[in-house]
Amino acid sequence: MSFDITFLGASGGPIESSTCSLLIKPHNVDYSTVSAANSPLLQVDAGSGSLSLAELIADKESPSRLLRLYEDSDELDAYVALQPCYPFASVSGNPFHSSKRIMSCVPTILVTHPHLDHIAALVLNSAEADFAKNKATVYASKFTAQTLQENIFNGKIWPDMVSLGTIGMSRVEPKEPFSTNNGAYTITMFDLQHGVTKTDEGTVPYLSSAYLIHHISSNARLLVFGDFEADAVSGKELNRQIWFKVAPFVADGSLKAIVLECSMASQEPPVELYGHLMPEHLIGELEVFSSFCSSPLDGFNVIVTHVKDTPGGSDPRRLVLKELQTLAAQSKLGVRFSMALSGLSLTI
Amino acid sequence: MSFDITFLGASGGPIESSTCSLLIKPHNVDYSTVSAANSPLLQVDAGSGSLSLAELIADKESPSRLLRLYEDSDELDAYVALQPCYPFASVSGNPFHSSKRIMSCVPTILVTHPHLDHIAALVLNSAEADFAKNKATVYASKFTAQTLQENIFNGKIWPDMVSLGTIGMSRVEPKEPFSTNNGAYTITMFDLQHGVTKTDEGTVPYLSSAYLIHHISSNARLLVFGDFEADAVSGKELNRQIWFKVAPFVADGSLKAIVLECSMASQEPPVELYGHLMPEHLIGELEVFSSFCSSPLDGFNVIVTHVKDTPGGSDPRRLVLKELQTLAAQSKLGVRFSMALSGLSLTI
Repeated sequence: MSFDITFLGASGGPIESSTCSLLIKPHNVDYSTVSAANSPLLQVDAGSGSLSLAELIADKESPSRLLRLYEDSDELDAYVALQPCYPFASVSGNPFHSSKRIMSCVPTILVTHPHLDHIAALVLNSAEADFAKNKATVYASKFTAQTLQENIFNGKIWPDMVSLGTIGMSRVEPKEPFSTNNGAYTITMFDLQHGVTKTDEGTVPYLSSAYLIHHISSNARLLVFGDFEADAVSGKELNRQIWFKVAPFVADGSLKAIVLECSMASQEPPVELYGHLMPEHLIGELEVFSSFCSSPLDGFNVIVTHVKDTPGGSDPRRLVLKELQTLAAQSKLGVRFSMALSGLSLTI
Repeated sequence: MSFDITFLGASGGPIESSTCSLLIKPHNVDYSTVSAANSPLLQVDAGSGSLSLAELIADKESPSRLLRLYEDSDELDAYVALQPCYPFASVSGNPFHSSKRIMSCVPTILVTHPHLDHIAALVLNSAEADFAKNKATVYASKFTAQTLQENIFNGKIWPDMVSLGTIGMSRVEPKEPFSTNNGAYTITMFDLQHGVTKTDEGTVPYLSSAYLIHHISSNARLLVFGDFEADAVSGKELNRQIWFKVAPFVADGSLKAIVLECSMASQEPPVELYGHLMPEHLIGELEVFSSFCSSPLDGFNVIVTHVKDTPGGSDPRRLVLKELQTLAAQSKLGVRFSMALSGLSLTI
């Protein structure tokens, strides 16, 4: 068994849409026939949503839409080691209608943190007249759930869709596995540090989350990180604990891929990271991961999302991929990198 | 003299992008040569921003992008009584580069209210590395400015771009004309009521704003409403005061157009309006406006934005326009209606 994953959005900003959202289904489920009853669809973050999906259904070329806005982009297949798949190819009918039908079959949304590029579509799509019927539940850390409730669903930025019953909100504890509302998955959330932030209470660590997703019936796993920084930068061992925990799932073949950020190519002179990774940091993290694995990571799939777009500059995904490939070769890490693109689907 | 106006976005949701943002320039200014020094560009709301502009520069067909997602849309020209114009046709070079250059020439952003569909791009675009150089100032009511500061630019939903100096924030008082930071316009803000909202303090009116924009050197005016409800619904006379104030500018020819919402076609059975207008309400408001004018509104341009999209349903802009035309004929209102579409430009 494997998963089909679709990046409804993969940008880390500063563009205002196509931001992070990952739609996941077991490979043997068909979008053209999936129905709300016992749907095994799962979403991680919701910076993009029903419009991105409608445009993807209307236009199979949508993964190239951002690429055309750079002067130096490569062809699509240069970005992905995995073969792109087209799980919406068999979806017939009106794009908006099909998008609405499929989004109504997503009962479970895992939110990694409350930055706007990860929640904008969740908020805006929630005004859809039939959204409440979907009974979608947002799973999030205490910090994320509380921040959404106090700052977004408060009657000022948006109506309180939680109190109105449109969205369910479930607070989850780190490292304590829970079953999703559709019963299809066991999820384990891990704390991440995504830099620091200035608040009324002073400068504090900004918490983000990673989710280890376990599809119970097939024993297939996927690990998805929210925005985060390297342990070498934070001075903590949050990531190290995750690598240790999931290393056995490489050995038994159940971990199909890791999806994580590498927000920007190396900068000269060095820049403020704002709690993100550059290629050297990602390679450092993967070296730790590899050290916990009983065999080399040869051929293991690492999918890089949340690259920050650089309007007026070079295609950042091309630069990040090149650097990662060079550094991985130097470190003898045999992982296969693919760059997430908004609208791209991959079978893993 | 007249204005070129571009709808970077015109949707009132529930789709997650293409939401309200209006870019305005004097007609005699050229986007291909405009420079930051003394730029007379002006923006009202910022639900869409630099990505919408880049896609518009890359693809002149972008006003049709939403239309193709409905089964029953008309051709583009069926939606607009005014002739579409193409002020970006002469903009050469890379779309992202050109979009960044043009957005860096927008010193003045008028925000009508802090609902996410009116501010999402302002927030997300503010992470662009060079944004701070633009010295853009957001003008907003006390309620809007305070809500943005407390709920968005607070280190939780987004870094505090105001304290960091990336965005200037200026609180304006209703009915007190002020000069914009580029010196090109005198603006008068008016309070609107956009329904009510439940907050910690109980159920309170939700305030929105309208802006009367006066281009000083040419004496051309434009009136742009944020989301609002009819006086007949609110039981107040907020809109009536605006109509009274601007009626003389129809007589002297300086008011070129009104841009305002009509969020949905009539519904059967009647639905909750959530502080918005349906065609009957808009016609009622225009009847009040007409009563204050010294001559009929024949040929006066009314541009309707913020229609809520209806994924899976009929094209709502087509329905709203038909109803408005029918009701206006019954009322002998000679106004010319055009429907705003994301990516559409009009010379008024």
